[in-house]
Amino acid sequence: MDWLGSLDRLARERAKAGLTRQLRPRPADDQVIDLAGNDYLGLSGHVAVVDAAREALSRYGLGATGSRLVRGSTDAHAALESALAGWLGTESALVFSSGYLANLAVIRAAAAVCDLVVSDAYNHASLIDGCKISGLPVTVAPHNDPAGVAAILDAHPGRTAAVVTESVFSVDGDLAPLAELHAVTSARGALLIVDDAHALGLLGPAGAGGVAAAGLAQRPDVIVTATLSKSLGGAGGVIAGAEPVIRHLVDTGRTFIYDTAPPPAVVAGVHAAVELAVAADDRRATLFERGARIAARLRAAGFPVADPAAGVLSVPAPGPEAAVGWAADCRDRGVAVGCFRPPSTPDGSSRLRLTVNAGVPEADFARALDVIVECAP
Amino acid sequence: MDWLGSLDRLARERAKAGLTRQLRPRPADDQVIDLAGNDYLGLSGHVAVVDAAREALSRYGLGATGSRLVRGSTDAHAALESALAGWLGTESALVFSSGYLANLAVIRAAAAVCDLVVSDAYNHASLIDGCKISGLPVTVAPHNDPAGVAAILDAHPGRTAAVVTESVFSVDGDLAPLAELHAVTSARGALLIVDDAHALGLLGPAGAGGVAAAGLAQRPDVIVTATLSKSLGGAGGVIAGAEPVIRHLVDTGRTFIYDTAPPPAVVAGVHAAVELAVAADDRRATLFERGARIAARLRAAGFPVADPAAGVLSVPAPGPEAAVGWAADCRDRGVAVGCFRPPSTPDGSSRLRLTVNAGVPEADFARALDVIVECAP
Repeated sequence: MDWLGSLDRLARERAKAGLTRQLRPRPADDQVIDLAGNDYLGLSGHVAVVDAAREALSRYGLGATGSRLVRGSTDAHAALESALAGWLGTESALVFSSGYLANLAVIRAAAAVCDLVVSDAYNHASLIDGCKISGLPVTVAPHNDPAGVAAILDAHPGRTAAVVTESVFSVDGDLAPLAELHAVTSARGALLIVDDAHALGLLGPAGAGGVAAAGLAQRPDVIVTATLSKSLGGAGGVIAGAEPVIRHLVDTGRTFIYDTAPPPAVVAGVHAAVELAVAADDRRATLFERGARIAARLRAAGFPVADPAAGVLSVPAPGPEAAVGWAADCRDRGVAVGCFRPPSTPDGSSRLRLTVNAGVPEADFARALDVIVECAP
Repeated sequence: MDWLGSLDRLARERAKAGLTRQLRPRPADDQVIDLAGNDYLGLSGHVAVVDAAREALSRYGLGATGSRLVRGSTDAHAALESALAGWLGTESALVFSSGYLANLAVIRAAAAVCDLVVSDAYNHASLIDGCKISGLPVTVAPHNDPAGVAAILDAHPGRTAAVVTESVFSVDGDLAPLAELHAVTSARGALLIVDDAHALGLLGPAGAGGVAAAGLAQRPDVIVTATLSKSLGGAGGVIAGAEPVIRHLVDTGRTFIYDTAPPPAVVAGVHAAVELAVAADDRRATLFERGARIAARLRAAGFPVADPAAGVLSVPAPGPEAAVGWAADCRDRGVAVGCFRPPSTPDGSSRLRLTVNAGVPEADFARALDVIVECAP
């Protein structure tokens, strides 16, 4: 078996298709203007976040030293979970070391009481993997289509379904019709699982997320997941919902039980970020104003770009090479933008993905806009 | 659908079976003596580790702000990966935000060139999930049985297999016969994947792990995974192996590509821990002396406990309630020990799991041994 040779052959095929990916480590004093990351509120470097993490490092050390059920639960974890449940408006919340692991856990938990999962066609890789690992039969629903979901549920009478969607989709930045979806699921006794990763901190009262914005936070038939690594500027994931859900996850959630707990310092820093995010209406206003400004500027330059629902804008490119070239030209001129190609895009197209960061200084933001338009193919 | 009611019913069934789990958050100034965590070398609170993380927090902020391929790669990530490859003796290494995610990635990568996976019966949940999510047909091999693995491979002529094992098993602490396994796999053109989580820092030259101890580090047909959260006192996971493996993971690894990068401060702290671990022969000597001492003491008290291969000892208990009671009595007297019950144990039995921490002061360690024996059922 020449398996290294086989891997080399696969690598050459990817190269031919323009799908080779490159890690580009950035220095700590990176001067590039960030329109690519997910630090939407600019909190990752906020002095209160950094100070809280530094202080926890001194008190707890670096690692949690074990899984949550062995040695890894600290009072910092408990305090963050309480704060997150309070903010999101749910009975309870449970922190994971990654949003990916939270999404794997939540669909498997649903499998304890459901026998069908209905997954939006544009769902994130972690949700797709969560469906796969749940062992449930999976039906893919047309993107953002409550009537399509209703038709699938109606075609499976006697089944108990979990319907899985993002609130703000990670690549295109569009918003799911959550209220309509919930009307469909609740009328049919289905569970609604919403990944709020790109809406937490941005939408809803006090930034409590897309589910809260849709008035669904306290519904017992809704479970929310989110990351702590985007608007909260840290790392990790969370599942928030009714107490029996969290109890089930503590007792049976494989990616919770068999994983080292997140570091107390990260948890403490994220907790400080939650407090800042709750009070960040000013940063949210900046973010939405900037999002509308980018969209208007790109439309004026001939690109069909919608006003973003939150902090993500998707800009179509003619193909993968054009997208890569556009992003590279921007980078050469000091502006970081995302470049999404297959297989990272749900529909096989290529595009720039721009993200709005309310923490970028206004002059830098304005310059970045000029650069993006000037580099357009 | 009364799905909350269904979850409640499941919770009551678990309670009846003695399988309810409880989170017990510990304070930062916890005085409990730790024989439960995985901080084998006592590095999680080492001043050099904490200082490196604190300094990186000030320089980079808290979160990595994006996935590794977008904004999440910093020079701290690149430096740690280079240090890990150098230490483990592999061509290349790639860091993940959790060992769980690394294990999901490595078996899926193998699926690009293999069409069968053979998994040790006692493998960790993350490896079992990795097998499941790989989409490959899975055959479970008898525990630590190279002849059994050979028989499975010989029964599948024409198949290209990946054989998956831990080096030191997480629950019982026993060592896999890696050299014999590799003789079996290499003679049959199979790939050997080894989770070195509980051996890294403890076994091998300069603590380079169980694979290095078996002389297999530079074999192109061996891939190593490990956590950064045990002997290295931090968080995250790593895959180390030949360059084409790492290249494949960067281009296609879903749990790498679609996950926020680990925080630079955690990465920098772990890097400092690597440097300490390489030079920690004194701590390793303490750890092995203590492991032998615990085993001898428990054998004298009538418990059939083997000398540990690394830092994990497994002590049989009469049943789940007895195990829980034993651990609770120890905790009440200030000693933390692990208590493993189904479904966390591979064979359905219950036991205490003791871990050796070279950083615990000698007087505390001696006292903990007394308490464990005095509380025995």
